[in-house]
Amino acid sequence: VVQADVVTTDPVAVKQFCIEVFEALNVPADDAAIVSDVLVEADLRGVDTHGVALLGLYARRLKAGGINPRPVIRVLQETPSLVLLDGDGGMGQLVGVSAMQKCIDKAKQTGLCAAGVRNSNHYGMAAYYAMMAIPHDMIGFSTTNNEPCLPPFDGLDPATGNNPQAYAIPAGTARPVVIDLAHSVVAFGKIDMAAKLGKPIPVGWAFDENGDPLTDAHEAQKAMRLTPAGGAKGYCLAVVMEALGGVLTGALFGRELLGHLGHLDQKDEVGHFFWALDIAPFMPPLRFKARMDELICQLKGVRLARGARQVYAPGEPELLERERRAREGIPMSRAVFEDLRTLAHELALEERAEALPRRQA
Amino acid sequence: VVQADVVTTDPVAVKQFCIEVFEALNVPADDAAIVSDVLVEADLRGVDTHGVALLGLYARRLKAGGINPRPVIRVLQETPSLVLLDGDGGMGQLVGVSAMQKCIDKAKQTGLCAAGVRNSNHYGMAAYYAMMAIPHDMIGFSTTNNEPCLPPFDGLDPATGNNPQAYAIPAGTARPVVIDLAHSVVAFGKIDMAAKLGKPIPVGWAFDENGDPLTDAHEAQKAMRLTPAGGAKGYCLAVVMEALGGVLTGALFGRELLGHLGHLDQKDEVGHFFWALDIAPFMPPLRFKARMDELICQLKGVRLARGARQVYAPGEPELLERERRAREGIPMSRAVFEDLRTLAHELALEERAEALPRRQA
Repeated sequence: VVQADVVTTDPVAVKQFCIEVFEALNVPADDAAIVSDVLVEADLRGVDTHGVALLGLYARRLKAGGINPRPVIRVLQETPSLVLLDGDGGMGQLVGVSAMQKCIDKAKQTGLCAAGVRNSNHYGMAAYYAMMAIPHDMIGFSTTNNEPCLPPFDGLDPATGNNPQAYAIPAGTARPVVIDLAHSVVAFGKIDMAAKLGKPIPVGWAFDENGDPLTDAHEAQKAMRLTPAGGAKGYCLAVVMEALGGVLTGALFGRELLGHLGHLDQKDEVGHFFWALDIAPFMPPLRFKARMDELICQLKGVRLARGARQVYAPGEPELLERERRAREGIPMSRAVFEDLRTLAHELALEERAEALPRRQA
Repeated sequence: VVQADVVTTDPVAVKQFCIEVFEALNVPADDAAIVSDVLVEADLRGVDTHGVALLGLYARRLKAGGINPRPVIRVLQETPSLVLLDGDGGMGQLVGVSAMQKCIDKAKQTGLCAAGVRNSNHYGMAAYYAMMAIPHDMIGFSTTNNEPCLPPFDGLDPATGNNPQAYAIPAGTARPVVIDLAHSVVAFGKIDMAAKLGKPIPVGWAFDENGDPLTDAHEAQKAMRLTPAGGAKGYCLAVVMEALGGVLTGALFGRELLGHLGHLDQKDEVGHFFWALDIAPFMPPLRFKARMDELICQLKGVRLARGARQVYAPGEPELLERERRAREGIPMSRAVFEDLRTLAHELALEERAEALPRRQA
């Protein structure tokens, strides 16, 4: 389905395209599959900013040397319930999946494990790693630092990233509770997406170096000054995530981080932090999940505010969108689609790019 | 120092008064000292809503049977890095301190430990428990559920508490980073305090059962409908804290919770959740703390927004206030002071109450 500004693409073809792009850039096949799954999951969940829209940037960074296509991820320190990994400058998605898998394995032994990662790159959608805990009847947590774009409350210059945090909590017949939020009013990716689409941004998302609001997405990209969500609350949470993801892990942090957009040939050297908690020691997982169902039922059972159409449980809109897009395809903006075609041309993968649009039923 | 509406009180005398009140209500001396320390720390930090202003309510609940003065706190489940406790209906502060101490002890063995608590009561200031980790060179986390007062985003009726979360992170020469935030625009305690002082509340803090804003603090107390901070973000975080503090621990949760204000003779049966993480396995604590100092220095070094007088690190205002109040005394509202005098009269502790106002230097 090709409309004026949206191309409906096939999720399987999109993932296969990602895999072949990465393989063409010297990423081993197994690793390419892992990274591609993280990206396409973001697109399926409607988090378009953290999906294949990033593929062109990642490809440029792989070519320029900013990302190591063949990292050797090493354990630097390990205790029964902690592990510290060196990501060797690999793709953040690969490093993140390795670290969370290690958390889950160790939490099976002790009930709880946290992993810190240094020397990594942009890891995309924070929720992916937290959600890895769900099939193991565990609760998952994930955070990362990133380049400074969130000025302290009452300050003008950025000193931390807007550092997302994600939690994933299993439920029974209801969908799991999954949250993934940046501590700015909106994630930087939404500004990047507006810039790509040539659209203005609302007042309140970002400001300039004098503290004046910006509505031009390109200017906001350059200014790197997002508004903290909830005022001082968003600032406080972003600083905690900087401490967990950056300071604790031995990664770069704060203003040391250059940012991956403007420095294609340099490693991000960001850090991530994860934990996984096993539910079974607290109560039988079936009972826990029935209790989560009851909580979710209570949330969704309240009377609606004026003008509201439905109360959603946290994460429910993304999971509904995932179900819809798995059936109906991923609506990709024309700008992103054309970027992928350009990339395909550079890598002699034109045929794969032609397979992206979904065939009419 | 006695002004029209403020009485400057002596922190040592306030703590001693709390201890004797609890002892008069059948709380063992050691336990009374623990609970009193949590309360007075809140007053010292300027969190007046969570300090001795609660003493009268706690006393009524102890008398009426809503709080068990002599709980036997039991371990229900234990793995190397998890522990589940039954608080036996004891004071939340006592149960919370026990649980966090257990986390710290076990984290020394495995690097990380979480504790869940069921069958507890209101635990006061969430930051206290997280901060217990700091002298051990650990990072601390604390959350609790409480009676429903935060409607879901787009909903009219409360289904979760506004469930605070607190983190405490050691620093070196800088003050530690401590955050403690409710997921409503303001904590319910601020509405209780406004009601006690007979002051109105700003539009945006709370609304009525039809979704209309409330400015009368007494009406807001009855309506139990706070506005989530950051819109859906505050709602999402409150639900996660309800799942960790309430669902996972086997406590009551969501609309099952009655609330301790209107049900003096019934246990809250709230739950808490804590974790402590040992920094040493990641890097020498001195190095971690120097890195935190550097981050804090970066935060405080940015240019000021128009109209701002200073950028604070997260938790710095409360720690500055603690230093000031330790020197100069705790400014207590006349209404709270008179409540304490009434309580003293009921318990034949008038002499202790007379010792509360700070002597002129």
